[in-house]
Amino acid sequence: MTSTARPDTSGRIAALRRKLLEEGLDGYVVPRFDEHQGEYCAPHDCRLAYVTGFTGSAGVAIIMRDRAAIFVDGRYQVQVRDEIDLDQFQVEHLHNAPLKDWLAKHLRRGEKVGFNPMLLPSTWDEDCGRSVSAAGGSWVPVTQDLVDAIWTAQPEKPLGKIMAFPLANSGESVASKRRRIAAMLAEHGADFLVETQPDNIAWFLNVRGGDVACNPMPQSFMIVDREGKAEWLVDHRKLPNDLSGFELDGVAIAEPQRLLERVRAAAPGRTAMFDPAVTSSAVAHATRDAGGSVRLARSPITLAKMHKNPIELAGFRDCHQLDGAAWIRFFDWLERHAGEREANGEPVTELEAEERILAFRGMAESFVESSFRTISAAGANAAMCHYAATDKSNAPITSRGVFLLDSGGQYLTGTTDATRTTAIGPVNTEMCRAYTAVLKGFISMMSLKFPTGACGHHLDAFARRPLWDLGLDYDHGTGHGVGHMLSVHEQPQRFDRRINEIELTPGMVTTIEPGYYKAGEYGIRIENQVEVIDDGDGFMSFRSLTLVPIDLRLAEIALLTEAERHWIDTYHERVATSMAGLLDAGPASWLAARTAPISFPDQKRVSEQASL
Amino acid sequence: MTSTARPDTSGRIAALRRKLLEEGLDGYVVPRFDEHQGEYCAPHDCRLAYVTGFTGSAGVAIIMRDRAAIFVDGRYQVQVRDEIDLDQFQVEHLHNAPLKDWLAKHLRRGEKVGFNPMLLPSTWDEDCGRSVSAAGGSWVPVTQDLVDAIWTAQPEKPLGKIMAFPLANSGESVASKRRRIAAMLAEHGADFLVETQPDNIAWFLNVRGGDVACNPMPQSFMIVDREGKAEWLVDHRKLPNDLSGFELDGVAIAEPQRLLERVRAAAPGRTAMFDPAVTSSAVAHATRDAGGSVRLARSPITLAKMHKNPIELAGFRDCHQLDGAAWIRFFDWLERHAGEREANGEPVTELEAEERILAFRGMAESFVESSFRTISAAGANAAMCHYAATDKSNAPITSRGVFLLDSGGQYLTGTTDATRTTAIGPVNTEMCRAYTAVLKGFISMMSLKFPTGACGHHLDAFARRPLWDLGLDYDHGTGHGVGHMLSVHEQPQRFDRRINEIELTPGMVTTIEPGYYKAGEYGIRIENQVEVIDDGDGFMSFRSLTLVPIDLRLAEIALLTEAERHWIDTYHERVATSMAGLLDAGPASWLAARTAPISFPDQKRVSEQASL
Repeated sequence: MTSTARPDTSGRIAALRRKLLEEGLDGYVVPRFDEHQGEYCAPHDCRLAYVTGFTGSAGVAIIMRDRAAIFVDGRYQVQVRDEIDLDQFQVEHLHNAPLKDWLAKHLRRGEKVGFNPMLLPSTWDEDCGRSVSAAGGSWVPVTQDLVDAIWTAQPEKPLGKIMAFPLANSGESVASKRRRIAAMLAEHGADFLVETQPDNIAWFLNVRGGDVACNPMPQSFMIVDREGKAEWLVDHRKLPNDLSGFELDGVAIAEPQRLLERVRAAAPGRTAMFDPAVTSSAVAHATRDAGGSVRLARSPITLAKMHKNPIELAGFRDCHQLDGAAWIRFFDWLERHAGEREANGEPVTELEAEERILAFRGMAESFVESSFRTISAAGANAAMCHYAATDKSNAPITSRGVFLLDSGGQYLTGTTDATRTTAIGPVNTEMCRAYTAVLKGFISMMSLKFPTGACGHHLDAFARRPLWDLGLDYDHGTGHGVGHMLSVHEQPQRFDRRINEIELTPGMVTTIEPGYYKAGEYGIRIENQVEVIDDGDGFMSFRSLTLVPIDLRLAEIALLTEAERHWIDTYHERVATSMAGLLDAGPASWLAARTAPISFPDQKRVSEQASL
Repeated sequence: MTSTARPDTSGRIAALRRKLLEEGLDGYVVPRFDEHQGEYCAPHDCRLAYVTGFTGSAGVAIIMRDRAAIFVDGRYQVQVRDEIDLDQFQVEHLHNAPLKDWLAKHLRRGEKVGFNPMLLPSTWDEDCGRSVSAAGGSWVPVTQDLVDAIWTAQPEKPLGKIMAFPLANSGESVASKRRRIAAMLAEHGADFLVETQPDNIAWFLNVRGGDVACNPMPQSFMIVDREGKAEWLVDHRKLPNDLSGFELDGVAIAEPQRLLERVRAAAPGRTAMFDPAVTSSAVAHATRDAGGSVRLARSPITLAKMHKNPIELAGFRDCHQLDGAAWIRFFDWLERHAGEREANGEPVTELEAEERILAFRGMAESFVESSFRTISAAGANAAMCHYAATDKSNAPITSRGVFLLDSGGQYLTGTTDATRTTAIGPVNTEMCRAYTAVLKGFISMMSLKFPTGACGHHLDAFARRPLWDLGLDYDHGTGHGVGHMLSVHEQPQRFDRRINEIELTPGMVTTIEPGYYKAGEYGIRIENQVEVIDDGDGFMSFRSLTLVPIDLRLAEIALLTEAERHWIDTYHERVATSMAGLLDAGPASWLAARTAPISFPDQKRVSEQASL
């Protein structure tokens, strides 16, 4: 992760400190969170990057009058030091030495720390507030954000156009969703739900939008009551004049600034439900201040949305066919040109590859945009799991080392996310061994049959075992949920060592993506998206949505078991069959070569001869 | 699980109800717990069985003046209906519909429910107390147990003799343990530990005893302070007059009846630490009433004891060699006699087999007693995981069906627990398939290499996967910790689907025991005890302690992979080598036949001929 030009943040920090004086505060919390507490932010909300220079997707800073600290997780320990002014900040670990601990330890008696309760989730507010009190300080909510106040030329809030997402794509009417969520609220003894997750709201209202790149949903808020009546708090400028096609029966519309006012109006004597980990603490305060009680739990919309309906699943299958064709065209193009271009001294680069896969996706009418910033990483760059090529880092894809491509698209019918690792020249035995272990782990997960009650943390180790056998491992999860033309990282299910109490059930869509990374040398990842299908009798399995050949030239075939070879052949046969008629001669012949069976090479050759 | 004669409990229930009236109560809680909240009880403490007839190892009853309910877990849903008077009791699920829910739902406003706070753990007291309050009732601790008051001919408290457990066996002095636990208390900010687990106390004080069959430790209590000073609350009649050999420096002795008085004396202004799940709520009340605070956490002794020291591990290895010899002698005897005895119409029975394995164990000088009631189960009886043969159920071991033997011993050097499934005649293909799947799961766990940070719930599925492939599973954990001449079921580590936050680390001893059970037909389980060993570079693996051949006549060898056959051969070679010189000709030749290699039968035959 190589930085672009480092902004001079000292003036910004000085301005924030002057603002602290004005407000009578001694410190201020600057989180990466926006008002929706999600993974992706609009430029308007990149307050942490503005103040500190740190551009990662998670973190928080505390700016005191005379000192400051920034907290980032394990992924960003190197990047943060590259991006921030280390004279200004102490760097801490977001999870192992979190802000709340810093406050408990470093705050001086009597110091007042301000925070914006629209940005901080309830859990953070409570944890930090407790630490501040214990240290003898004051924890002070502000009504106007202090960073916004000093941010000259702050980008405007995004105004991405909102469109109706038709029943033909969503598969369930808003009326039906309203009934279902109302019933879930009643079960929880809650009177209304405060929903601030853009993807949950877009799913519930059958709308899509475009406020943040790669995330086709509008930023908005919503309140749903126990009768299924909803109020959608959304900037009217993002809506078309003609709302025909929208399913707005039982849905009132208001401006998002009215969120807290509406919560206060609904709260007295009633119970508000929201997820404290991803809902602004301002919502909790508004509820309680108005005499309401709170029911803290995962949103019922998150739990309803995690099971894709038959139309959504059909859409996923459809867009994966299109997406597979784009991958195949890309690899055909790459292998056709990379060698020659390298020989001519003009090798294909990471950024060019990224543009190409996007262009191939663009051939599909239903393609909307990328579902995340493509990771196009050659050689040692592939060892960085969250690499994004820049003009400065843009490495050539040469015959030395591997090339890792992790890429996906938003389609009107669904969302894709896949990774393949390949090489355009021969690679060494160590890389082949590691690739083979990753492939074995991948197949182990892909071919798993598992019973009712299994959660991600029960199954994650299957993907790792072939690496463990070699004394290796990877430091990321094995898979995440995927939204339906929504966020490519979707809660709540996950394959990970960390505990995830969500039982896997038919209709879920997730990725399976083991990898191996050797810092400074190479990186390997193989990723498919899958749906969970019902095998009957209390058992389930995964069915691949991704239809992209797996490079076997990097694998040591002799190390694969008969069952593993059989799985590969069956998968490749399915890929080949599903692409029939979709590809021109070039990509079609590349596909045929890459999907040739490996189980019974001799038999195959005989049967091929026989058919001549 | 076939019942013996059902006691007539109606008189006892009537007596308890009269007692309720006398005490001004409307109901009384009768738990399976004794004052130590463990798995095993002395006859003196089998109050639940006395009142209800239910003899399982977990459960609770509530006796109201006009109604009653009993709560047992999934294992005992059949047994409880066989043992209790169903006219008297409503039967509920201990975990899915627990007592606290019953109280919240069925208690009438104003009803007073009594409980014995020496028997109920803190967590139960708090949960039930909350429910009773919510229902408008009163939750009333009693000072004298109401069941004891009506129990005519209640057995006396056990007075098993206590012996010193020498350093040659324990491997760590009490002085060293006192220092370690004191340091752990200081880390937790606790002033003293209240310990009520007999195995923890026996480990800490390097003593053993015999109050409950198969559990060679004395019932007692203990308080340890932050300087490592201990007070051992134990019935003096169990101690020898001559205490030489005991390590009692810094250890005061008092009678167990003084527990609460001692807690009250220590508590004012200080912090008591104890595990609320396995410590009487009376301890929590005594602490708080005397002005102390509580620090609730797993006992530091549990966490220290889970890592066996080198002497304990050497002892484990030693006693497993002796135990293996007993198993081998047993199987040699069984196979020598079972066929003939069956033909003569006097087949070997389950109880006879149980006596035999005990007798073979008794040949070792260091053998003390069984480590649990042997499960000797033929045919359909083997389908019951917790089967214990009775005179009535005592089935013949015949050539029809499998024979499952789950058995272990307490030795001065350690504790054993193993299971083997065998057949003295041919079995059908279905059984062989299931046996092969269990064997594959067993080998998968036994041969696992895994990294730092792995917990039981991450690895449990490896043992199940070959069964999952067939749409099968088993409804018990995959393994449990084992004490060192202590409880055969030892906390805290466990292989199970349930979350267990204890990371596996070198020096732990556990079982690995996948199985498969087909109700009414057969049961299969293969169990070894293992130690966790350090492989270096952050990885660990399991090394078998158990040295007993695995029956391959029940397996479909063709379904085993090369790696699986290799594992079997390597294990069998180790078993054979470790028994060299220990066995007479008969068992030795049985062992040679049962450990013959299967990997390369042709090569082996060649080499055998060559050596002639």
